[in-house]
Amino acid sequence: MILCDIGNSTYHFLIEGKDKRYLLDEELPKFDDEIYFVSVNDRGSKKLIKSNPQAKNIEKLMKFETEYKGLGIDRALACYFEKNCIVVDAGSAITVDIMDEKHSGGFILPGCKAYMNTYPKISKKLNFDFDININLDKIPLQTKDAISYAMMKSIILPIKEVSKDRKIIFTGGDGELFSKYFENSVYKKDLIFMNMKRIIDANNCIA
Amino acid sequence: MILCDIGNSTYHFLIEGKDKRYLLDEELPKFDDEIYFVSVNDRGSKKLIKSNPQAKNIEKLMKFETEYKGLGIDRALACYFEKNCIVVDAGSAITVDIMDEKHSGGFILPGCKAYMNTYPKISKKLNFDFDININLDKIPLQTKDAISYAMMKSIILPIKEVSKDRKIIFTGGDGELFSKYFENSVYKKDLIFMNMKRIIDANNCIA
Repeated sequence: MILCDIGNSTYHFLIEGKDKRYLLDEELPKFDDEIYFVSVNDRGSKKLIKSNPQAKNIEKLMKFETEYKGLGIDRALACYFEKNCIVVDAGSAITVDIMDEKHSGGFILPGCKAYMNTYPKISKKLNFDFDININLDKIPLQTKDAISYAMMKSIILPIKEVSKDRKIIFTGGDGELFSKYFENSVYKKDLIFMNMKRIIDANNCIA
Repeated sequence: MILCDIGNSTYHFLIEGKDKRYLLDEELPKFDDEIYFVSVNDRGSKKLIKSNPQAKNIEKLMKFETEYKGLGIDRALACYFEKNCIVVDAGSAITVDIMDEKHSGGFILPGCKAYMNTYPKISKKLNFDFDININLDKIPLQTKDAISYAMMKSIILPIKEVSKDRKIIFTGGDGELFSKYFENSVYKKDLIFMNMKRIIDANNCIA
């Protein structure tokens, strides 16, 4: 069984327990196995089905209760089995979702790469390599630190404020980095794939 | 007497009490009055002096004590007469400077416009008009609100954390907007020009 999470910029496959990414414009292989996928990207879905007609979208198997209008299926999937916690997917955007008894809403911060791309566009003088291990207990004394500190604080503090004392589950490429700043946190690298498997198993749809 | 603050993207003049902006690439008028300026932009300074050879850079009149390496002259000028407070210049970037007995450092957030430009580059689905009057006491229930909320929180919370109970002085194009979120704040629209005048007067350099 192959799983695939189709995002805004990549196909993220889990093939025999291993990650494999393809850019949306790349040619996809023809797989022999069953493929189950979720997608926030219609064009990406169509292309996968064209190259692999056996691929099945599991979105229709999901029942996710929320008043949020237009919640991406990847966010719903990350939150799917959680209660009374915060779910943070730190990728190209950083989605922060609040799970009480059900989904209570959320917000979307720019991802680290988006921050890093933004500063040099404001001024050439703000073109530095970021230091993601910057000391956040010390007010910066140079511009390189001033932008790294601001980026980290502007991501960490809104998550901290909304989380109160609740557990925080991090996933996504920068999830491990940010989980270190929260005592009550766990990092689940493959949260999306884990939850896809649980949904597929629960629906007994493996041939 | 004409004052001019040369930034990363514009010449900002104060002429007979009125603001006048020119883009850096625009042709500048030939003025008859004395001109005093500060600049974070060498090319901008040279162009002003070329069109108005009487223009005088007041940077050499300033003595500003800090351990911060490479502090822009506009940030030093905004903080120049302040003590035991936070100075926030909310423009294309949002500079946040901590003044104890002397300048203790600071950090640089992206400005609102930079945030607004960033989201659509992450995904077309994040291309919304921002609502700067978003209710920050309510977790967002749609994507438009989710990005407005995140932008406002990611700017407000780092300023709140560093300010503790100290007074906050806001200036810059978005300074008035953000000052509303802080009880212990004032908005000084013309802080830079006010301080330029005080420095010029103190140095008695008006012919």
